[in-house]
Amino acid sequence: MSIWHSIEKPTLVLDSDTARRNIHRMCEKAKAQKIRFRPHFKTHQSAEIGEWFREEGVQAITVSSLDMAKYFAQHGWQDITVAFPVNIRQMNTIQELARQIHLALLIESSETAQALGKYLKSPVDIWIKIDTGAGRTGIIWEQFSKVATLIKQIQRFPNLNLRGLLTHAGHTYIPSREEIVNRYHEAIDRLNQLRKELEGYCPLEVSVGDTPGCTLAENLGKVDEIRPGNFVFYDAMQLHYGVCQPEDIAVALACPVVAKHPERDEIVIHGGAIHLSKDYIQNGGQIIYGLVALPKENHWSKPLSNAFVRGLSQEHGIVRLSATDVEHIQLGDLICIIPVHSCLTVHAMGKYLTLDGKIIQAMNKE
Amino acid sequence: MSIWHSIEKPTLVLDSDTARRNIHRMCEKAKAQKIRFRPHFKTHQSAEIGEWFREEGVQAITVSSLDMAKYFAQHGWQDITVAFPVNIRQMNTIQELARQIHLALLIESSETAQALGKYLKSPVDIWIKIDTGAGRTGIIWEQFSKVATLIKQIQRFPNLNLRGLLTHAGHTYIPSREEIVNRYHEAIDRLNQLRKELEGYCPLEVSVGDTPGCTLAENLGKVDEIRPGNFVFYDAMQLHYGVCQPEDIAVALACPVVAKHPERDEIVIHGGAIHLSKDYIQNGGQIIYGLVALPKENHWSKPLSNAFVRGLSQEHGIVRLSATDVEHIQLGDLICIIPVHSCLTVHAMGKYLTLDGKIIQAMNKE
Repeated sequence: MSIWHSIEKPTLVLDSDTARRNIHRMCEKAKAQKIRFRPHFKTHQSAEIGEWFREEGVQAITVSSLDMAKYFAQHGWQDITVAFPVNIRQMNTIQELARQIHLALLIESSETAQALGKYLKSPVDIWIKIDTGAGRTGIIWEQFSKVATLIKQIQRFPNLNLRGLLTHAGHTYIPSREEIVNRYHEAIDRLNQLRKELEGYCPLEVSVGDTPGCTLAENLGKVDEIRPGNFVFYDAMQLHYGVCQPEDIAVALACPVVAKHPERDEIVIHGGAIHLSKDYIQNGGQIIYGLVALPKENHWSKPLSNAFVRGLSQEHGIVRLSATDVEHIQLGDLICIIPVHSCLTVHAMGKYLTLDGKIIQAMNKE
Repeated sequence: MSIWHSIEKPTLVLDSDTARRNIHRMCEKAKAQKIRFRPHFKTHQSAEIGEWFREEGVQAITVSSLDMAKYFAQHGWQDITVAFPVNIRQMNTIQELARQIHLALLIESSETAQALGKYLKSPVDIWIKIDTGAGRTGIIWEQFSKVATLIKQIQRFPNLNLRGLLTHAGHTYIPSREEIVNRYHEAIDRLNQLRKELEGYCPLEVSVGDTPGCTLAENLGKVDEIRPGNFVFYDAMQLHYGVCQPEDIAVALACPVVAKHPERDEIVIHGGAIHLSKDYIQNGGQIIYGLVALPKENHWSKPLSNAFVRGLSQEHGIVRLSATDVEHIQLGDLICIIPVHSCLTVHAMGKYLTLDGKIIQAMNKE
């Protein structure tokens, strides 16, 4: 029996088979190349989905906040990297977690190293965050002496166990498969170059973790660890960048149609910024907040051509369609929106309905 | 004692005095002009803040979803308009609410009128949603005959009590005080023109409700009801449009500083898309995801000049500052981000910390 008839309001639908296939594929890829796979759990944020990774042999994970680390620690994960620069106002929470699990933290400044080193009573792993070109945060890969100074600072404290150099090559989020792979390898080369210059100080691992690069690079390169997250579900952005195929996308927001505007080839759905988030992709001059599919017996269709979410307010979505589709879709029908950024949509919705009618909870946003 | 020292992670801080002053001012304005004030509660989403309206004499409210209607009904509100086109998949919920409270619904199609009329066992008020120029949804104000047909359809069902014509003039969200007032009055003129043409059918009220227009128009015009919501807190967008002053803004997201990048005049904060939402304003070519203020003894400063949030990822905010400010701000300091769109930030955060240290809950996002 299909789930669609039971849906009354915006509902995040999960195709578990597709998600499990995505997980399996990335696990196998890392395994074949003897690289540690430490998936980022910020995308699915769910203990139950975490188990699907465990079934594939995953034992170490990445998260984006201490709250998320606490949640997964409570669900039996013992080896967690918090891939976010240490916030020294949360020292008590760090201390508490470091006591319970094998915790790894990111730092990029001597002040933070010192604050941690002086305060912590339990050992933690430390990764130095390196900016390999994304320009978000981290020490720029060319600043050898800054990294060297930081290493010396870290080594003063026996509780800080320096593991290596870590980057998030966020600049692989671009619409060119070739350039994604180039940038992925460039980021790794930059880390390895830095590692080589630092040989005299200590042995260092390197860790990378973007979904575009880890998906498209056949050879994952000279890395010790990969940390992609989004690949578990993919989304309209990854599709737009050529990273995945429509059939790899594992989540869609089912939205009731509440108004029709045939005069402008548009419909209005219940499904807005509070459900999808306002991340967008740009295609030509057009801003796109989601792609449009139709519910099928046990899945959803491929994205309709010339159809997209063109606007979002708090609860409304404005959907542009072909004249024929506007004609065929009726008030009260459901349409499936492929989110632009699945991580944010999952966070906004907080739970899933699987295609076989099961509810899966994500972490409680305290 | 100030609250700032107790904050460890992104926290939505509420200046209750400012919010109460905003509420009082709008109440007085409506009262003086003998217009019913039916504030939109989607901005604050909190039963406790709702009480501040009740203390000013407000008895009727607007919400954006049936879930929100249920929440406020549970907290004693008996007269609620759901300002969103009826979603006929939620007929059971509508029925249940209509039994408990004085419920008003928005419709814009004969199909929906018929579905409601046939199904509902308790009476509801009906407003016809009119598009007065915003282009989101509703029947275009010039389509007299479409509205007339809908009225006849509604009148067939004794449980559907037709109240009038309702619009949201969303096209007042523009950076010109003069043009905001023009568009506000134009929307009202359009409703009144339509009402006049429909005189033969039945008496109709008119209802409008955008914060820019209701704030800036000294004379609220020939309307029976106003429904603004955002004015309770305002935000960076309203400031950018000239609708409010910095001292009218009642919420800010306190965010710990986790990295400094003096070489590019930027800092990184814990505070990202999942906290602020990704709504933005454009100033010249620059996309701005929030303004920047500093915590003060018992409030926050005015927005710093030449400072803004230039990027948001899931948990990171990238903040551009003057070189001097980057120098003065230290790791572990808090900065206060004035959100671009307070409604979405409140929804994302789900609770407030007041300047005097009290936690106020918003509705539980089920």
